[in-house]
Amino acid sequence: MIAWLQMGWGDLGVFGEPSKETPNLDRMAAEGMLFPNFYSANPLCSPSRAALLTGRLPIRNGFYSTNGHARNAYTPQQIVGGIPKEEILIPEMLKKAGYVSKIIGKWHLGHRPQFLPLQHGFDEWFGAPNCHFGPYSSKEETPNIPVYNNSEMVGRYYEDFMINRKTGESNLTQLYLEEALGYIRRQAASHQRFFMYWAIDSTHAPVYASEKFIGKSQRGRYGDAVMEIDHSVGLILKELQTQGISENTFVFFTSDNGAALMSGPLQAGSNGPFLCGKETTFEGGMREPAIAWWPGHIKAGQVSYQLGSVMDLFTTSLSLAGLQPPTDRELDGLDLTHVLLENRIIERPIFYYRGNEMMAVRMGLYKAHYWTWSNSWEEFKKGIDFCPGQSIPVVTSHTQEEHTQQPIIFHLGRDLGEKYPISVSSAEYQAVLKQISPAVEKHRKELVPGMPQLNMCDLAVMNWAPAGCEKLGKCLKGPETNPWKCEWPH
Amino acid sequence: MIAWLQMGWGDLGVFGEPSKETPNLDRMAAEGMLFPNFYSANPLCSPSRAALLTGRLPIRNGFYSTNGHARNAYTPQQIVGGIPKEEILIPEMLKKAGYVSKIIGKWHLGHRPQFLPLQHGFDEWFGAPNCHFGPYSSKEETPNIPVYNNSEMVGRYYEDFMINRKTGESNLTQLYLEEALGYIRRQAASHQRFFMYWAIDSTHAPVYASEKFIGKSQRGRYGDAVMEIDHSVGLILKELQTQGISENTFVFFTSDNGAALMSGPLQAGSNGPFLCGKETTFEGGMREPAIAWWPGHIKAGQVSYQLGSVMDLFTTSLSLAGLQPPTDRELDGLDLTHVLLENRIIERPIFYYRGNEMMAVRMGLYKAHYWTWSNSWEEFKKGIDFCPGQSIPVVTSHTQEEHTQQPIIFHLGRDLGEKYPISVSSAEYQAVLKQISPAVEKHRKELVPGMPQLNMCDLAVMNWAPAGCEKLGKCLKGPETNPWKCEWPH
Ligand SMILES: [Ca+2]
Ligand SMILES: [Ca+2]
Repeated sequence: MIAWLQMGWGDLGVFGEPSKETPNLDRMAAEGMLFPNFYSANPLCSPSRAALLTGRLPIRNGFYSTNGHARNAYTPQQIVGGIPKEEILIPEMLKKAGYVSKIIGKWHLGHRPQFLPLQHGFDEWFGAPNCHFGPYSSKEETPNIPVYNNSEMVGRYYEDFMINRKTGESNLTQLYLEEALGYIRRQAASHQRFFMYWAIDSTHAPVYASEKFIGKSQRGRYGDAVMEIDHSVGLILKELQTQGISENTFVFFTSDNGAALMSGPLQAGSNGPFLCGKETTFEGGMREPAIAWWPGHIKAGQVSYQLGSVMDLFTTSLSLAGLQPPTDRELDGLDLTHVLLENRIIERPIFYYRGNEMMAVRMGLYKAHYWTWSNSWEEFKKGIDFCPGQSIPVVTSHTQEEHTQQPIIFHLGRDLGEKYPISVSSAEYQAVLKQISPAVEKHRKELVPGMPQLNMCDLAVMNWAPAGCEKLGKCLKGPETNPWKCEWPH
Repeated sequence: MIAWLQMGWGDLGVFGEPSKETPNLDRMAAEGMLFPNFYSANPLCSPSRAALLTGRLPIRNGFYSTNGHARNAYTPQQIVGGIPKEEILIPEMLKKAGYVSKIIGKWHLGHRPQFLPLQHGFDEWFGAPNCHFGPYSSKEETPNIPVYNNSEMVGRYYEDFMINRKTGESNLTQLYLEEALGYIRRQAASHQRFFMYWAIDSTHAPVYASEKFIGKSQRGRYGDAVMEIDHSVGLILKELQTQGISENTFVFFTSDNGAALMSGPLQAGSNGPFLCGKETTFEGGMREPAIAWWPGHIKAGQVSYQLGSVMDLFTTSLSLAGLQPPTDRELDGLDLTHVLLENRIIERPIFYYRGNEMMAVRMGLYKAHYWTWSNSWEEFKKGIDFCPGQSIPVVTSHTQEEHTQQPIIFHLGRDLGEKYPISVSSAEYQAVLKQISPAVEKHRKELVPGMPQLNMCDLAVMNWAPAGCEKLGKCLKGPETNPWKCEWPH
């Protein structure tokens, strides 16, 4: 079971959030294994989610764009592409071992019919294909995002599934919680193996929380959403125990990208001591809170220093289910079974990608930046800031800075904030580079990029008439097809 | 018992340090009460230490300077002043309840004979009167800092008490640990009530650790020192349990100021998500890690949201010893007994002083800055940076910025980094100001500043010939007296 959302590394009490308002997640960590060095595969949602479910970097599974250099791309309503059929997702594999699978919440791997979860191995789905942006009016010529139950829509955000943009109130997390508890109960009752992917989105702007959590945290609206998620995680773990299946259920909690600092203090969380946030390849953008929980198997109260990746959840899930990973393709995820059960360490590099560019790589405690960029001057002058209050010369630059001949290297143990480049003339720098360079060269040489899926946009592909819209009288008429190359400003 | 040193809020695992290398302090927190909102009384050592021991703001007890506006002052070797006789220190009070007292480590309240610990209520002392700067040579015309055993020196740093400036190796923390364990054993054996003030300094530049800790942490030299302190705290708590006195001993762990970010990554720790560090009145300079431990009295696993201050340890210590606080003077410390035992909250403002100026005040989750300053352009251009990598317009300025007519207000719950000033035209701003202003006016009106002790310097007062130097052949001859007004650049 994977719980998965947008949250910063520093948003959990156990990772130093001062209000300590995540008692259930903190207890989950105390009863399981904490990963302080766990990474997303990309600093934003769609590519990171595609990577989790395929065990492969977005550059391989197609969740990137070549419309510009090092540009973040995702799946807004006008995106033409989505997850390719050829990719193998966790639920497709687990089916072979007799598992059923459900996704609850945001999909984000493409919203056209061929890309939806039930076409890619999931047996059930309750949630939406895109972000809960809106409300859109007919004047804006944009449909509100549909909410699906399995293969048919059951309504739309802001129409049938309300989010009060003024107060931030919405009961969606409660709906997603009930879906999760119900699914667990049903599978337990029928002794059915299951994979549940709980991909809630209340901490993503527009941030929302249920009535009983609104105003309850010390952290404003974002904190209210975090409290509700924490509360929900507590109830889910308790349900596993009540059903007597906690010792048979591997649970992993993590996030798809760092806190979105550009959303300001009401709609964004904390990346703790790390640099910048979502959209960047600094630690604040890609290091994620991560907790593994499996009573009776994972010893309580452990910390793993393993460099982990969301892609490891693919390979590890297969391993726990007794399956071999596919051999006809490159996989980036590792099998963490021995890390989880014996607290071993597997040496491996972490590659930090932004769009089509490998920006940085981490090995051990060292991180080498080959490219650095926050965002463009043009966007920055509009007030979009991925690193508010932070400024490291050359590093958090608004022009893309190339360092491929002489990477900027940081020691992440003694320099959490990526502030102190190691002198290129030092013996330490030379020794690190000597270790990192071969891994980078090998990666670059062997990499066969997948066909980019996030290049084309078209208003005609928006959620005008999703399956099931007729029954609800919710079909809309979109414009004629008129594709263009999507612009990705970040 | 108070353990007290220089460490940043973010340096403990329980406060989110990613390497999680403080298992003993984290366990201390799990067995006791954690304070995420605990403050020093000043963003640097001497004044903060004077405040802890007197329960009074430095502006009252004289540990400040009027040589410049809002300048940090402390007690280097050339300082003429020290703790006034008229101040009442914790050990002076506790004596009335039959306690004996020992200070182990750095004193820092003045090094001239009349200012030393045994003149101010302590019965024993092992440690040094000043920071462990050096080594000084006779060419520099500066004596190395003496180490005292009670009222006589037993050697000097870099001569008899070695710190290898190149490797960072020194066994001083081990000496201070042995002193602590021995003292505890002796008091336990004689059923003697005691106050132990364990004021170690290995995390203060020049940072040092013992041979067996050198190179052991993920965080470089500073991390090695933190690991050794953590290890020592573990052994001290264990000794209390071994001696059967843990349920009769109140233990408090905290710090005198935030991590000294200007000392760079090898010699400085982490202030977690907070702004700037030592020397500043931003959260990174004054919010401190703090843990209370008292098995059988303080319930395990608690978090207190109390706004606490190091000055509260004065009043609380008296209360726990059954003593009334002195009534002939203003005290700034609160009695936290009910906070500790019943997790109650006492509303109170926190005043952030820098030298002779009240720079900011916190009430509840709001902080209002009346003055902001990082350091002068002159110092900044020399490379001294109290906020490396951080830059908030007007806030982290290099000129002193006055906001007394319209304070800059932050919400510290949703804005840990003091990045998003609340709009002065908002209802929230007006409501907060209406609540804070009367407290500030009252404080300013009633404040009677003490005689400033840190105005005058004189090379003649340096540690040339401390008591006991004759026996050791370590007396040096200083220059004639030639006092000047000390320059305090920060
Ligand atoms: Ca497939
Ligand atoms: Ca006195």
